Amino acid sequence: MCRGINLFNSKKIDEMKKSIDKWEKTTLEESLKLKSERKKEFFTSSNIVVKRVYTPLDIANKDYLKEIGLPGEYPFTRGIHATMYRARIWTMRQFAGFGTAEQTNKRFKYLLQHGETGLSVAFDFPTLCGYDSDDLMSKGEVGACGVAVDTLKDMEILFEGIPLNKVTTSMTINGPAATIWSMYIVTAEKQGAKKEELGGTIQNDILKEYMAQKSFIFPPEPSLKLVVDTIEYASKYLPKWNPISISGYHIREAGANAVQELAFTLADGLTYVEATLERGLKVDDFAPRLSFFFACHNNFFEEIAKFRAARRIWAREMKERFQAKKKRSLWLRFHTQTSGCTLTAQQPYNNIVRVAIQALAAVLGGTQSLHTNSMDEALSLPTEFAVRIALRTQQIIAHESGVTDTIDPLGGSYYVEWLTDKMEEECYKYFDKIDKLGGVVEGIKRGFFQKEIANSAHKYQEGIDKGEIIVVGVNGYATEELMPVPIFRIEPEVEKKQIERLKRVKMERNSKKVEEAIDQLKKAAEKEENLMPYIINAVKEYATLGEITKALKEIYGEYHELLIY
Amino acid sequence: MCRGINLFNSKKIDEMKKSIDKWEKTTLEESLKLKSERKKEFFTSSNIVVKRVYTPLDIANKDYLKEIGLPGEYPFTRGIHATMYRARIWTMRQFAGFGTAEQTNKRFKYLLQHGETGLSVAFDFPTLCGYDSDDLMSKGEVGACGVAVDTLKDMEILFEGIPLNKVTTSMTINGPAATIWSMYIVTAEKQGAKKEELGGTIQNDILKEYMAQKSFIFPPEPSLKLVVDTIEYASKYLPKWNPISISGYHIREAGANAVQELAFTLADGLTYVEATLERGLKVDDFAPRLSFFFACHNNFFEEIAKFRAARRIWAREMKERFQAKKKRSLWLRFHTQTSGCTLTAQQPYNNIVRVAIQALAAVLGGTQSLHTNSMDEALSLPTEFAVRIALRTQQIIAHESGVTDTIDPLGGSYYVEWLTDKMEEECYKYFDKIDKLGGVVEGIKRGFFQKEIANSAHKYQEGIDKGEIIVVGVNGYATEELMPVPIFRIEPEVEKKQIERLKRVKMERNSKKVEEAIDQLKKAAEKEENLMPYIINAVKEYATLGEITKALKEIYGEYHELLIY
Repeated sequence: MCRGINLFNSKKIDEMKKSIDKWEKTTLEESLKLKSERKKEFFTSSNIVVKRVYTPLDIANKDYLKEIGLPGEYPFTRGIHATMYRARIWTMRQFAGFGTAEQTNKRFKYLLQHGETGLSVAFDFPTLCGYDSDDLMSKGEVGACGVAVDTLKDMEILFEGIPLNKVTTSMTINGPAATIWSMYIVTAEKQGAKKEELGGTIQNDILKEYMAQKSFIFPPEPSLKLVVDTIEYASKYLPKWNPISISGYHIREAGANAVQELAFTLADGLTYVEATLERGLKVDDFAPRLSFFFACHNNFFEEIAKFRAARRIWAREMKERFQAKKKRSLWLRFHTQTSGCTLTAQQPYNNIVRVAIQALAAVLGGTQSLHTNSMDEALSLPTEFAVRIALRTQQIIAHESGVTDTIDPLGGSYYVEWLTDKMEEECYKYFDKIDKLGGVVEGIKRGFFQKEIANSAHKYQEGIDKGEIIVVGVNGYATEELMPVPIFRIEPEVEKKQIERLKRVKMERNSKKVEEAIDQLKKAAEKEENLMPYIINAVKEYATLGEITKALKEIYGEYHELLIY
Repeated sequence: MCRGINLFNSKKIDEMKKSIDKWEKTTLEESLKLKSERKKEFFTSSNIVVKRVYTPLDIANKDYLKEIGLPGEYPFTRGIHATMYRARIWTMRQFAGFGTAEQTNKRFKYLLQHGETGLSVAFDFPTLCGYDSDDLMSKGEVGACGVAVDTLKDMEILFEGIPLNKVTTSMTINGPAATIWSMYIVTAEKQGAKKEELGGTIQNDILKEYMAQKSFIFPPEPSLKLVVDTIEYASKYLPKWNPISISGYHIREAGANAVQELAFTLADGLTYVEATLERGLKVDDFAPRLSFFFACHNNFFEEIAKFRAARRIWAREMKERFQAKKKRSLWLRFHTQTSGCTLTAQQPYNNIVRVAIQALAAVLGGTQSLHTNSMDEALSLPTEFAVRIALRTQQIIAHESGVTDTIDPLGGSYYVEWLTDKMEEECYKYFDKIDKLGGVVEGIKRGFFQKEIANSAHKYQEGIDKGEIIVVGVNGYATEELMPVPIFRIEPEVEKKQIERLKRVKMERNSKKVEEAIDQLKKAAEKEENLMPYIINAVKEYATLGEITKALKEIYGEYHELLIY
């Protein structure tokens, strides 16, 4: 990382080196004689060895302006804005959705009433996979882990009474992202909003589905093509929309470590940029609307370093690899969710503590928006009681902790700066490996990412089994529960009601027009046109999610993962 | 703070200054035009103005080795040990006590069973004031907010089945500290332990009682004399005991800000050192056993800076003012308790979040032991359910967050180092003021500390009233409670039972021997002898706390605060 210019006086640094050597031979030796350390070596979650103490020596070669710099300026290590939270607190955005559109609409209103500042929709499993609620594949899953959306009708109910030109909405949807987004756009327009007013995000990151989350539908190439369609459409008509949220969250939750999450996510991002450039768009016309989504796991400083490194790497790649000129094209803007997989079903109130620490790390890492997990998520859908504590966690950090008063308060910390560099270094090692494999899509087909993630997951589990990693309440400090949390489950009638509504919609719509729209969509898919206008057209006629997905499957085929490990 | 030697290259620093000026005129201006900041100025709790961003310029004049240095070496800014938590996690010490000695004994065992590593006794209000349970002054308060201890008998029950040569015990007791400590020593000896094996702490910090907590008994001078008695006694017979815990906690809880807590506590410490030197002890014979106790409030970085500054100031004063030679004499070892006054009765589960953030700050500040408050403390005595979450909070920080893997991870942070200096600077301003008043005891008599604390408390309340300070769930995000916490109160029979036991003890003891012991104690007090052996003698005969206190009142008189404001 040394670029020859640095703030330090090299003579003084040499003097200091001698003092530190002496410290090791005297003070440290003495301490170790009295009591040895708890472990032979200390590691971060990414197997980076953590030193006993960090000093100016660890950052003596750094060029402050080039590598750390000032907030709002390249390379954005310290944050993308010059004022950060002093001007505007991150968006408090709680991922929510269950049962019918009416039930989720009620929860949205509850969250907004309690101070949430942005919406985030969780769809049920059938919706995520592109199945209608009356599909055989949907049985038992309708509304269970998210809200069921079959047609425009459901979307209209979902946002009833919520002005979509006022609030921003994030939607966790990937395979069928274009369809769900189309339903949202049409709903907003029916409310009287204009496309250019709409702010929000569709996750729409299909590459990480193949790597980790596994709710893909089509093979990688047409999937990638559909993503580019949405990016292109947004760049033309929805300038405030984020057509993609390049997501490390699911990679991490599947077992990746922090470095893998960082590297694979950014590699996915670079792949989307390349694909969009191939379509013929100019980098500065779409790059400003690319957004990211990371997990925040337990290792406090590693997570902060990850976020800082992510900003720096992305800015450099956009500038140097893709010659982006606009400042906004260099910005890595990201949403963070605290890590679901760190929560325990045992002693669930302990999860409030974990979420608080993780949320604090996300904020110190400079996140643009944040979901804090509810303490009961390892047990059930979040109750209002639990989700409110989660939201209050963000509000306490924002208003009581003082950490929002200055930008990047950890900047300069020997450990944090060293670890930021280290994360970056390890990330570039993965970039090299991926390049050698022929890129992300090739890596997916060969199972590279899947294997890497599985290895990390295995290593973590091994750490727990051996007691090297202690999870409080699980393999340490286990005990009977004193006070059970209230449990919230979706009643089975939801499925019946949803299917009935779908039936009614199908009866009331103009079937001929639906058929025509689907037919046009298929033709456009064959001709490799941008499908967004065709999908919007079908959605307006109340074509179902399942019908649109099925039509595209006929053209694109379906993807089945090769099990290689 | 500049001592002429620093690590930075001054030319490069000048270059950087220009870049920062340019950033202010371009990037920052631009940002501010788009959106102004939320407040005109941002302040810490101590009214220190927080800058937008900190850079190497803010620490460019620092001498790393002299001012920050290495852990385990002077000036100990980075911690008193060269290995810190890598060798040994802080002591998890939950303050606990209620009802009878039997009830508290049961809670102690519960805590130890759940992974607590040290004990901490809360005494009831009569005990704190030196009244027996059958005193008219005690009515309604026996066992209510702590455990009632009248005689050696109660102490024996309190620690039944807990080997006092194995566990360390902290006792929050001040006015009657010598008596309670004597009871503990005799109990331990009856268990078969030797004095020199006993580890623990008596709070015994009477000066802060006059400043803030107000449970003093005698006037300042004899009180100070009694403190010196215990320090002298410990230095001779209990080398592992901390005869005092110089406490900022109550100063802070009474409304002081972080700087005041720091300055007043250290000033008290210096006063104890001076008084003990006057007795004729050598500084290195007693200074290693002085210990401290701080609060950890909400402002995350200010609290961390406070702890770092405290270590540096104390080390410097001990070395330069008192010529201490032993390394241990320079160590500021401290216990931390998360801040009770930040907890809210409204939405009590939110307190879990506050406690987690405060506990993390204490750990990043390098605390030696920690009490985490229970979330229900604003409502009732802590239930087992609540106290376990509090303990789990410490365990999660210790084992899951990774912050214990490296020493002083915030070292070098421009903000944290700058704020550490600032805290120190402000602390010395108070030292000057106190010197000009003629010292701490004079300051107390004139109401100086009381007024300063009251002003801060008033300012804080004003901030809340005006909405400049938001307390989540109180003056922001208020709402009805969804799930009440279980409430735990002491049943009224406790008082009756305790009085009966006292009666029985009085009947069974040798009254003549008690009278003789009390008589000898009074004579020794008149002759200004060290009272510890006399108190131990009386305690062994089951003289009551009230009897011993009354005897001393006859010699020393009682103190009544002059209300000046």
